[in-house]
Amino acid sequence: MTDTRTDNWGRWGADDERGTLNLITDEGVLAAMQVCKTGKVYSLSLPIQQEGVPIFDYRGAPRRYSLTSASDKDPYAAFGAAPGVGSNEDMLVFASHSITHMDALSHVFTDKGIYNGFPRDEFSTAGGAPHCDIRTTGTFAGRGVLLDLPRHQGVDWLEPGQVIDSAQLEACAEAQGTEVRQGDIVLVRTGWLDFYATGESGFEQPGLGVDAVKFVDDHEIAALGADNGAIEVIPFDNGVFLAVHIALLVERGLTLMEHLKLSELAADGCHEFFLSVGALPVTGAAGSPINPVAIG
Amino acid sequence: MTDTRTDNWGRWGADDERGTLNLITDEGVLAAMQVCKTGKVYSLSLPIQQEGVPIFDYRGAPRRYSLTSASDKDPYAAFGAAPGVGSNEDMLVFASHSITHMDALSHVFTDKGIYNGFPRDEFSTAGGAPHCDIRTTGTFAGRGVLLDLPRHQGVDWLEPGQVIDSAQLEACAEAQGTEVRQGDIVLVRTGWLDFYATGESGFEQPGLGVDAVKFVDDHEIAALGADNGAIEVIPFDNGVFLAVHIALLVERGLTLMEHLKLSELAADGCHEFFLSVGALPVTGAAGSPINPVAIG
Amino acid sequence: MTDTRTDNWGRWGADDERGTLNLITDEGVLAAMQVCKTGKVYSLSLPIQQEGVPIFDYRGAPRRYSLTSASDKDPYAAFGAAPGVGSNEDMLVFASHSITHMDALSHVFTDKGIYNGFPRDEFSTAGGAPHCDIRTTGTFAGRGVLLDLPRHQGVDWLEPGQVIDSAQLEACAEAQGTEVRQGDIVLVRTGWLDFYATGESGFEQPGLGVDAVKFVDDHEIAALGADNGAIEVIPFDNGVFLAVHIALLVERGLTLMEHLKLSELAADGCHEFFLSVGALPVTGAAGSPINPVAIG
Amino acid sequence: MTDTRTDNWGRWGADDERGTLNLITDEGVLAAMQVCKTGKVYSLSLPIQQEGVPIFDYRGAPRRYSLTSASDKDPYAAFGAAPGVGSNEDMLVFASHSITHMDALSHVFTDKGIYNGFPRDEFSTAGGAPHCDIRTTGTFAGRGVLLDLPRHQGVDWLEPGQVIDSAQLEACAEAQGTEVRQGDIVLVRTGWLDFYATGESGFEQPGLGVDAVKFVDDHEIAALGADNGAIEVIPFDNGVFLAVHIALLVERGLTLMEHLKLSELAADGCHEFFLSVGALPVTGAAGSPINPVAIG
Repeated sequence: MTDTRTDNWGRWGADDERGTLNLITDEGVLAAMQVCKTGKVYSLSLPIQQEGVPIFDYRGAPRRYSLTSASDKDPYAAFGAAPGVGSNEDMLVFASHSITHMDALSHVFTDKGIYNGFPRDEFSTAGGAPHCDIRTTGTFAGRGVLLDLPRHQGVDWLEPGQVIDSAQLEACAEAQGTEVRQGDIVLVRTGWLDFYATGESGFEQPGLGVDAVKFVDDHEIAALGADNGAIEVIPFDNGVFLAVHIALLVERGLTLMEHLKLSELAADGCHEFFLSVGALPVTGAAGSPINPVAIG
Repeated sequence: MTDTRTDNWGRWGADDERGTLNLITDEGVLAAMQVCKTGKVYSLSLPIQQEGVPIFDYRGAPRRYSLTSASDKDPYAAFGAAPGVGSNEDMLVFASHSITHMDALSHVFTDKGIYNGFPRDEFSTAGGAPHCDIRTTGTFAGRGVLLDLPRHQGVDWLEPGQVIDSAQLEACAEAQGTEVRQGDIVLVRTGWLDFYATGESGFEQPGLGVDAVKFVDDHEIAALGADNGAIEVIPFDNGVFLAVHIALLVERGLTLMEHLKLSELAADGCHEFFLSVGALPVTGAAGSPINPVAIG
Repeated sequence: MTDTRTDNWGRWGADDERGTLNLITDEGVLAAMQVCKTGKVYSLSLPIQQEGVPIFDYRGAPRRYSLTSASDKDPYAAFGAAPGVGSNEDMLVFASHSITHMDALSHVFTDKGIYNGFPRDEFSTAGGAPHCDIRTTGTFAGRGVLLDLPRHQGVDWLEPGQVIDSAQLEACAEAQGTEVRQGDIVLVRTGWLDFYATGESGFEQPGLGVDAVKFVDDHEIAALGADNGAIEVIPFDNGVFLAVHIALLVERGLTLMEHLKLSELAADGCHEFFLSVGALPVTGAAGSPINPVAIG
Repeated sequence: MTDTRTDNWGRWGADDERGTLNLITDEGVLAAMQVCKTGKVYSLSLPIQQEGVPIFDYRGAPRRYSLTSASDKDPYAAFGAAPGVGSNEDMLVFASHSITHMDALSHVFTDKGIYNGFPRDEFSTAGGAPHCDIRTTGTFAGRGVLLDLPRHQGVDWLEPGQVIDSAQLEACAEAQGTEVRQGDIVLVRTGWLDFYATGESGFEQPGLGVDAVKFVDDHEIAALGADNGAIEVIPFDNGVFLAVHIALLVERGLTLMEHLKLSELAADGCHEFFLSVGALPVTGAAGSPINPVAIG
């Protein structure tokens, strides 16, 4: 199933905004349900809060503010509500790419543009992305596969800065007995969130190197997630800035999900599951926080 | 399966924060997958944007602001990025209960408290809900059932202010040939969003009356959604403020989802499906925007 | 004192970011204090709130959210605070140009750029204005002059869409006995906020036409304010979009202040006063809410 | 002029929400202008930005987001605007007490309530402060006095944790030859912002101790500012949490301003000046960022 193409621009038409999610078929979705064995429901999102979760400074910590509460003194009394009746509500303020999130295909651009050649500078201050906003890729489901690299390599977590290549991914899949199929959603566990939890983590993170793109091409996967902050290794492989994002997101139109909480699936040894993702369909947004749901 | 209890406080223990979601079992989740016939993936969320979607004034319209873009002049050049490489990102600012959303069990309180008797005034300005925040109920999956009332009643939409009772729900289910089972997630289509789309809608909405609580009790459903703004009829049934929210959310711990986009399921005549919901797990929040994913 | 120049680009140097505020001297500030007669302190800002004040939809209503309060249950108890001690704090979310505000000189651009020829597209998503942000013009003081047009013309307010020209401004000043001097801060009352308060106002507003630019040039005023939404008449004079903003803000570097509350000064017949303005010095911002302080 | 009262509750009536600002008279405002010698205009606000300024974590860093810009592709073309014409605008998101700010009299409460005995828990999530919000005290002007303690004590800055008492304030005023009068606005320079600028500062700050309240009482000052974060010394004097805030803000109704930029006044040896303050009149807010304007 080797693909010699180096990008998917035009592969699904000049207007395509779905990228590799086109590889998921309705039949594939039905088939994906057959892998479930326990019916256990997993949330793959970290809590959204200000502390104890990985935050990039320029994005700021996510904030919840109270909008209404019992401090409002029977706010509905004027509408005839019984004494004591009211509601608690919140305002949420956070970056679209904060904590557990999905990149829309408009997220990264190069001098050639975003995925499928849409213009580099069409993302506007007022309106955001006119093409490839999060609505076009935010809802999907299919067969999920966990590649648990730390378990395979016999460590608690991969080392910060450790480069993951195709051979390691293949070896892990084989050792697990997990076949990776066209249209799969592959989740790579590096153990980074466990290392983060120790309070010892810094700038460097383990992640995919450029060689790992071959794995994506060979298996024609539909989407890729990881428990680290950027899918790819930091510092960037060979020092090329965003090298893997450019190869996968921009050139191939591959949907990426970051900071996934994969520890429970790993603890259960659940390497195949049904996965559904419903990102917030924010018009014009280049990403969204997500809480993917896996069924074991 | 008649239940004579009038509330579920204590039913699953004094510490329970899941309410009727306890009625969903792992086996039920597996069984729910067997109802899928097409594998078609449905997003049940309206787009999140400032116009063309129903907004309550006090919550304000949801906003997307740009955080980074190509206007930032090669922002990563200092890090060695190739010319032209960068990223588009957003800031999102919206009410937890805006547009398509889920109520956490801490959302509504009476003089007796919130669900399961947690104190009425424990929701704090700085921290939000110490019990029953959206994290405790935000992730679930199971058998989804659509009760398409307008189709059953031969109208485009129910009239604003029209009260839906248990008999109507039973009649609709029977006419559709849809059995409603314990642990089901029931979605009620009133057609209100179609009426809203005409631009003619006002304050009044069709929705459940107090009598419809019997339907929930009889079938022991796990969660309830609708395409209207508050599940319940507006003006409130018998003029009792939030009467249905109090009976269902507060007294029974029933998870509610509002402003669901049900038109596609209805158009396809898809009345049974697998449904998964992954709300944003915001620590302390009394609700969350959601994009439930249905598989036909 | 006629000036035949049509713009001030380069007048105070190629690097100038202050524009006509350069016309205010320290001596002028001292002299401005000599006009005060009563010592009465006037706030020229409307309240910042969601309702009852003029809001442009795309800017959204200003919002105040609670950050801390007594609902937080002795939040400082852990720090040894006495029982009951705590603080109320807020989060503020609003457009830089909401309600009573000042335009920074980077606010409007034409195909030639912003004031003094700084590039049209240098305002970036992440950083805002690298030149002429609100910090460069946000703090000033001097002699303030009120031109109370409705009083002069014997009406409650000028008609929506009514064009104000130089002759009207001159006539008003003369009738009031108010000399307009170089470096003055001129505040033009149209009565529009009073009309707004009736609830009858619509899109159209009275305001300056292009001819009024001559008044600014002739008197070499330092800054200009008004009680309407855009200084200039709406619909725009001769149908030229932002014609007066372009002539004054972009070409002359004249600081503009909008939605000023001038009714108290007018009621007191206070046409000369000391005026000081301290905008929020937000790095990169193209404007700021302001609460100018006048001393009668 | 010794005052034996220990609080000002009721002093200006049971409904008073202005506190010691009542000590400023119109005559005093006029007289205050006579102290000006140079006409130089000083901004006393630090820049509002994310870095390089003191931020309390729970308040978060102030943020500016772009709302419109030239990236929006001739947004006004549809309205007939000439090609290239448009506007830059921002959204501002920050705590009411961030960086240079004023405390409203509703800011701090004890078990007895806020200033003048308004209830402790009346500040509500949705509406904020029904009494003593920032509108009631946000606009004032008068004679400003700088007490430059580091200069008087011959140091660059007072030591972190150093307690300032009445004797030190009196000695400084006397050495400067600065008479402190009833109704004055006293600004105390501790040098803390200069120490902060070294990057060496931590939790501790120099500031007023409880004994300094005597200075406020003896001189019947109208408002008090400082360059530190909380007026009072940190750690709190005698370990009493918010001891000075309680004595001054709550018990006396004294308006407090924090993180004032006093270095320019100090460098010029300007110890007497006219000061005007126009806080943002946010309905319900317990504070506001401010940019006080001093005239030397």
